[in-house]
Order: sequence, then structure tokens, then C-alpha cells
Amino acid sequence: MEFGTLVHMHGISLVGYQRGGARGPSFQAINPATGAALEPAFRTAAPEDVERAAQLAAAAALDYGRRSGAEKGAFLRAIAANLEAAAPALVERAASETALPPARLQGEAARTCNQLRLFAELVEKGSWVDARLDRAQERASGPRKPDLRSLLRPVGPVAVFGSSNFPLAFSVAGGDTASALAAGNPVVVKAHPAHPGTSELAGQAIVSAARDCGLPEGVFSLLFDAGIDVGVALVQHPLIRAVGFTGSLAAGRRLMDLAAARPEPIPVFAEMSSVNPVFILPRALQSRSGAIASGLHASVTLGAGQFCTKPGLVMLDHGAEAFVAELAALMQQPAAFTLLTPGIARGYQTGARERAAHPAVRALTPPAAAGVTAPALFQTDAAGFLAHPALAEEIFGPATLLVRHGGLSELLAVARSLRGHLTATVHGTEEDLREYADLLPILETRVGRLVLNGFPTGVEVTHAMVHGGPYPATSDGRSTSVGTQAILRFVRPVCYQDWPAFALPPELQDGNPLGIERHLDGVLE
Amino acid sequence: MEFGTLVHMHGISLVGYQRGGARGPSFQAINPATGAALEPAFRTAAPEDVERAAQLAAAAALDYGRRSGAEKGAFLRAIAANLEAAAPALVERAASETALPPARLQGEAARTCNQLRLFAELVEKGSWVDARLDRAQERASGPRKPDLRSLLRPVGPVAVFGSSNFPLAFSVAGGDTASALAAGNPVVVKAHPAHPGTSELAGQAIVSAARDCGLPEGVFSLLFDAGIDVGVALVQHPLIRAVGFTGSLAAGRRLMDLAAARPEPIPVFAEMSSVNPVFILPRALQSRSGAIASGLHASVTLGAGQFCTKPGLVMLDHGAEAFVAELAALMQQPAAFTLLTPGIARGYQTGARERAAHPAVRALTPPAAAGVTAPALFQTDAAGFLAHPALAEEIFGPATLLVRHGGLSELLAVARSLRGHLTATVHGTEEDLREYADLLPILETRVGRLVLNGFPTGVEVTHAMVHGGPYPATSDGRSTSVGTQAILRFVRPVCYQDWPAFALPPELQDGNPLGIERHLDGVLE
Repeated sequence: MEFGTLVHMHGISLVGYQRGGARGPSFQAINPATGAALEPAFRTAAPEDVERAAQLAAAAALDYGRRSGAEKGAFLRAIAANLEAAAPALVERAASETALPPARLQGEAARTCNQLRLFAELVEKGSWVDARLDRAQERASGPRKPDLRSLLRPVGPVAVFGSSNFPLAFSVAGGDTASALAAGNPVVVKAHPAHPGTSELAGQAIVSAARDCGLPEGVFSLLFDAGIDVGVALVQHPLIRAVGFTGSLAAGRRLMDLAAARPEPIPVFAEMSSVNPVFILPRALQSRSGAIASGLHASVTLGAGQFCTKPGLVMLDHGAEAFVAELAALMQQPAAFTLLTPGIARGYQTGARERAAHPAVRALTPPAAAGVTAPALFQTDAAGFLAHPALAEEIFGPATLLVRHGGLSELLAVARSLRGHLTATVHGTEEDLREYADLLPILETRVGRLVLNGFPTGVEVTHAMVHGGPYPATSDGRSTSVGTQAILRFVRPVCYQDWPAFALPPELQDGNPLGIERHLDGVLE
Repeated sequence: MEFGTLVHMHGISLVGYQRGGARGPSFQAINPATGAALEPAFRTAAPEDVERAAQLAAAAALDYGRRSGAEKGAFLRAIAANLEAAAPALVERAASETALPPARLQGEAARTCNQLRLFAELVEKGSWVDARLDRAQERASGPRKPDLRSLLRPVGPVAVFGSSNFPLAFSVAGGDTASALAAGNPVVVKAHPAHPGTSELAGQAIVSAARDCGLPEGVFSLLFDAGIDVGVALVQHPLIRAVGFTGSLAAGRRLMDLAAARPEPIPVFAEMSSVNPVFILPRALQSRSGAIASGLHASVTLGAGQFCTKPGLVMLDHGAEAFVAELAALMQQPAAFTLLTPGIARGYQTGARERAAHPAVRALTPPAAAGVTAPALFQTDAAGFLAHPALAEEIFGPATLLVRHGGLSELLAVARSLRGHLTATVHGTEEDLREYADLLPILETRVGRLVLNGFPTGVEVTHAMVHGGPYPATSDGRSTSVGTQAILRFVRPVCYQDWPAFALPPELQDGNPLGIERHLDGVLE
């Protein structure tokens, strides 16, 4: 594949360094703003494409998994450079396929490249492998204590499912792929059918980088399917060792169940459903009512409310009438949104209609015209919320639910009722935090990230970021899909007992030739 | 409970600081050496005992999970001190219940206490929480980058299933309990029905330590059941957040399936089935034939072959006749073993008989008399091994299978056919290792620990130890159940965005009041 071909789409799966077969049914992306079908048609990957991608990935794993941090870093940087070169085409195509604004997509492209370079830096530095050396030791009685050295090694081929709402940063070349490749794993991506063109362009950038870096064929493949067969086959394939997924709870749970039912179960890291509760405490509300209302409105409607960290649940006491009126006014500002797909738009409109009709709910925004996506603000009280678990469920789109409560004990009861979320947010002064001190320990057990006096949308890609949370926010609350800790999903510790230097990975050799952080008998070297 | 009562058994579950109900059916331990039933009778925990243990654990989690490393360390050290005080009674009872020799059990008691103290030291030092601080930063455009700080927090109540073969070190106060408590999680143990008395004595040591340390009731409970109902109820209980298990593949897989089918799936860390392949390369065999034969014989028969790291598969080339004869002679030395339970003995005797009768296998030891447990040595060739996957399955007891091969390519084919194991062992000279260099990369993907010129039995409790491996060795090859890394099974990362010092855990406060290792913007402070 020539670099110059990066901006042309062929509509055919990328299986290692070759194109897949072209005998399956085809499908086209739909421009959600116009309803028009976009060229070209994309061919569903054939079963032999899936098989070949998995076989190539398994064969590549033995080679790629032992490449140095420098080599993996160069690969990730080459992908970023290729994406940057293709960015105008990527953004144009993604805008057509998702109706996301070009400016937002430009930012997302930059984020995607930064993310790849952050993982490059991580593996180039190399300390992430958690190298541990426990020295041999003679003992008064019994055999000598052996020399033991451990580090984190790649798990093997990873299947990645792109998400619809971040067609770049959480899709083909997004966080799951970047972290799996950084860890030393080949990746097989199942392209999201809502943005196949964007997927192909990003996939070409990765394949081109892999070739340029002299990596084994199979370190990356990209498979198309408008349905579920290819994804199911991937998750069930014996050579696939882990799964990364971002999408709906229903689809994520389905993949979890498939993976758990395999003869050899494998881990699934699915980021699924989060309502991101916000707790606005009284003194903060008094002092910053306007700023909180405008910030909340911006956060709920950002990206047409299609962020996994959208605040969908807001706890307020009964005295907050002025704030509620202000927020309701903001939510009624004229604005029509185009959601990512016709299906998501229908889902949102139905969800909002049903919530407005819920007996425990009052709608604070007028009903939208049929087929129109408009922001929606709902209200219930703590008793209603606690009595109706369905009110805690996510509506994907620009809607949020206020839960009015009668003070600390009701607020804590609401907090205790929460399932797992990606984030929880508190708006509070220092005095608020001391008065509501019992809230934080509860929230800590429910979410991956606790935000103070801010808004949960906007997920930084850093070392301390946790974009995870207990089920159903994710399939495994012990993980994050954003930030450098995401690499820890796709590795396993391996211990070497009494091996000589020449047979050990350099990370574990005497003299620390890579100069990484290591623990010697439990003490940092 | 008085400390003086530690050495008396009551046969009743310990539910928090109280005794459970006593209305269920009862069972007794059997002395496997004599077949005699041992006093007292043990009552099966009632459903309300399970419910109360889970509720107490969940209530305790909020308090115990926020205790300092110093407090958790003091608790673990108090448990160790109580176990040491009770050691004579523990060893005597365990010897009656398991037929393991007192000297071995004394060693196991010491290991159990050392393990508790190693985790105490880990949490007292505190650096294990992987504290990460990413500083706030103004940006040229857009909002400021927030202050993000993360650390590892406990997952919540953990259910632990003790194993039969290590009635102390992998049972009530064993590695799973020690690592879960160290992480800050309450523990509910389902006692192994083969050593209920040992379990009760160890459980009393923990309860007494918890009271003395002023910890909340529910930080520990111990439930008895000769059947599976209590274990199933625990794994399905919504307040249980993770499971630790050591035992058979069938039982472990059952628990995995139950946990995966929950409305909210939880992780199961099951250490199950491993055959621990040994590769004896030609030059090592030439130079150390006698030492390898006697070492292998000792390792296969250690603890009557009831170690999860017992070498059950030995790859040798066709030229190794003298070694095979020597090993066969050692395996025929007069020795009768008493296995842990009558059921395990029957399973071993049946397994050995069936393997001897397998068409691809030749028995190199004579058949044992009916009802007698004797060491058994079997032999097949690479073709036979590859054609019959059943030959790769574990026989729990003092048996091993030699696989004779025709050189490098057959050896690599055998290695590639392996499923997951806890360990793989290589005996080789430097020249061997260079000639067989392709072996190590394959084995790295199959096991948690690679042993050179030693034997896999004997699992050190250190920082670099990995006692784990891909399925079916464990349920999750990304974990270890021995060594300080075992604590990582029972924690999850939590991120704090823009919180002031007073509301942050001390591990994340400015100035590093605990003086732990931390990463500031990715760089070790």
C-alpha cells in the first residue's frame, strides 16, 4: 500500500498487509444530517478473513510481543504521523459519517495522535513493565531462595470494537488500539458500521506505519461488518486473548457473556453505560448558581449529549428553585441536534418521550416535535428516584434528570442506591464537603473518577486518569480505557526463576541496561 | 471470644464477631490415614448466616477500606501472632485432617505467618497503591487541564475458598485472605470441608485479631458447608465484589460461570489446574542426569504429589534411556502415600489406572495394588501426546508423564500445543538454551513462571513471584495468587479531579505526607 493511497477508500477489510475477500454482502455509511448513503460500499468480512486476521495476529504476537519499547514507540509515532497527514480527509469523512462538527473532529484527531505519542513515550521510557528483582539467598535450612525476576508481558492478540461517538479517539486508532499495541499485542479491529470510511482511512494509516516499521504482517487488521457475525467470531476465536469495546450496555454484556462462555474464557474490557451523577451542595449553589447552571448545560449538551461522561443525573435540594429555573431556560434555548446515527436519534427521542411520561417525573422542557432531537430536562424527587430504578438508566443524548432531595440523609440514600458509573461530580465549598463528608466514601465505591467543582465531560489523557468504574459503567471496574494505565488491561506478569542474563528480557538484566525504574527485593533501585 | 478459646473448636460458623446459627445439617472431618470421623461435628451455615456475613462485610468495607496502611499492617501482624500462638493446635489438627506430616505443616504455618507479615510490610510502606499525580496546567486554548490524582482502592467484600492441599497457607488465613485484607477488603471465607477444624482455629485467630485491633465486625467471617450451597450463595451475593479460589478446574469453572452470569458480574481469581511441563535439554541431561532424576523424583512426590506446581509432564529426547531407567527406579522405591481425602485418593488411583491403560502410553512403574497410592511414571512420544489432548490433563497425586521427542521441531510442536500452566521448567546448559532459543518465547505465552535448572515445586512468597498462568491454570492469567502482586487482584484505580488536600487520601496529598513512591506527571517523585 502506497502512502499516497491513504486517503482513498476501497470498502474492503484490511487483513494484515492484504485486502480481504470481497464476496460478502455490502453496506454503506449514512450521513445522519442528510440521510444520504455515502460512497463507497463496504464489504462484510468473510469468515476466512476473520480466520486469517486471527492467525496472522497470533503469528505476529511472538515477534511483535518481543519488540523493544523503542521499536513499539516508533510504530505508534508513525501511526500518529500518518493520521496527521491524513487528518483533512479523516475529518471530512468523519463529519459526513457522524454529523459531528469539523472543529470537534479536528480536536479529536489531535487527541488521537497525542494519545498514540503518550503511549509511545511510556513504552520508550519502559518503566511501566513493573520490573521486580528478588535476589537469590542462601538459607539456614532448606534449599537456597532462588533468583526471581518478573515483568509485565503482552497477553496476545486483542480484538477492538470501535465506538460510534468518538470515531477517531475511541475507534480504529483510538485508546484501546494504542494501549494494546503499546503493550506489545497485535490488534484486530472490528470497524464500527456507522463510520466505515473513517475506519478504513485510520486503518490504512496503521497498516502503512506497520510496513514502514518492518513489523510482521498481522500486527493489525481491520474487519468490516454491518451486523454482528464478525464481532461474535472474533470474540469466540481461540487465538484472540482479550477484547476492548466501547458502546452500549446490551452489546457490551453480550460480548462479556460470549467471552465468559468460551472453552478458555478471556477478559473483556467494555466501557458501556454511565449516567455520571452530579451532587450540587447548598453553599456551592448559593455562591456559584449561574456558573454551575451554564456549565452543567454545556456539559449535558456537549457533542449533542453523546459523551459517555455526560452528566445525566443531578442531585439538588428542594431549595434550589432559582437554579432549576435558570437551567430549564438554558435547556430551552433554540438548538436542534443531529445525533450520530438515525438509530441513536430514534432511541433518544423515544427515551425522552417515555421519561417525560413517567409518573414520578416532571418534564421541565416542552416536548420536542416528532423526529426532532432537542435537549430535555426532567425532574423527580429522592423518593421517586429510589422507587423507580429505571430512572437511573442512561438516556444517550442531551437529556438530564434532576433529583430533588430533602437534605443529607436522603442524599446519602440516593448515593447508596447508585450502580457503577464512570464519574461522580460534587459541587461544594469546603464547608459543604465537611458537612457532607459521608458522601465521598460512598461515591468512591461507585465510580472511577471523582470530580470536584467541575464537569465530567472532558477526559484528559494522562497517567492518573481513570476512565472506568464498576459495572455497568464497564465490564471490569479494575481497569481504565483512557490514560496510560489503560495499558495494564492487556498485559500479564511473567516471572523468571534463575535465568542467566543473556536469556532474560533486558528489563530484568543485571545492571539495568535500559535504566528503568525497578524494585530490588521490594525497594526501588 | 477470649484468646484462650482459640484452641477449642465449636463447629459453628463465625459470622462477624458472633457464632452463626446451628440449625443446618452437620458433617465431620475424616482422618484420611485412618478413615475415622473427627470431633466435633460442624454445622452447615444457614442462608441467614450467609446473608448476615455479606451484610456485615459490606458495612465493614466503608470503614475498613479507609484504614491506614499502619492499621491494616497491625491487623495482619496480629493475625500472624495469633496463628503462631495457636500453631501447635493448628498443626496437630491439620495433621489429623489432611495426613500431611507435622514437619511440613509446621513449615506451612511459618509460611502463612511470613506471608501475613510480608503483606503487613507492603501496606505499612504504602507505595503499592501506585499513586499518580498529574498537575493542573493552563492551556493556550480551551479550559485548563485539571489536577488529577489516582491510587488503588479496595474492591469491596471478597469471598475466599480455601484449598485442600495447603490447609494453612492457601486456606482461611492464607494468601487470598492476606492479600484481600491487605488491600482493605473484608473477607468471607467458605471453609474447605476436608479441614473444618483447622479452618475454625485459623478463623478464630483472625476474629480475635480483628477485635483486638478495633476493626468493624464483618471484616472477617468464616462459613462451613460440606456441600456447595454456601459457596454458590456467596458467589451470587450482590454485596460480594470478588472471589478468590484454589481448587479443581471443575469447581473453579463453576464459580467462574456463576460470577459471569450475575446481574453484575464480578472477577473470580481461581487457581485451578496445572501440569507444569519440564523440558530437559540434551546437554543438561548429559552433564547432570543423576541430579535431575533425583530432583524430579523429589518434586513429583513432594507432599504426595499434591502440589499445584507438581511437574506432571517431562519432555525428553529419545536418547535419554539411562535417565529414564534411573527415574523409573526412583519412582519404584517402596513408598505408600496417604492423600488428602478419600476422594482425592480414589481420583488418583483411577486416573493412574486409566493412564496406564491408554493406548499411546506405556507405564514404567508396576500397577499399584487396589486402594494403594503409589508413585507412577508413564511414557508416551510426541506424536502420541499431540494426538491425545487428554494426556495433557492433570493427575493430582505422585504421577508424571514422560514425552519422548525426536528433537527441536517436535519439541517446539509439543510446546505450542500446551494450554496454560502455572510454571514451565527448562533444564539446559547455555549451549542448550541458545540451540533451543525458540522454546522460551513460546513458553512465556503459556505460563506465569519460567524455572531454569530447578524444579517448580516450592513457590517463594516474594515481590517478583508469579503464581498464575493462562487458563486453565487460573481463571485470569493476568494475576498471581502468591507474592505481593496478589494484592493487585482486589483493588481498582480511583481518580480524584481537583480535590483539596483535606478531602484527599494522604497518599495523594501535596508534600507526600506518607513518604511513598509516587509519580508526578509520569516521573517518579
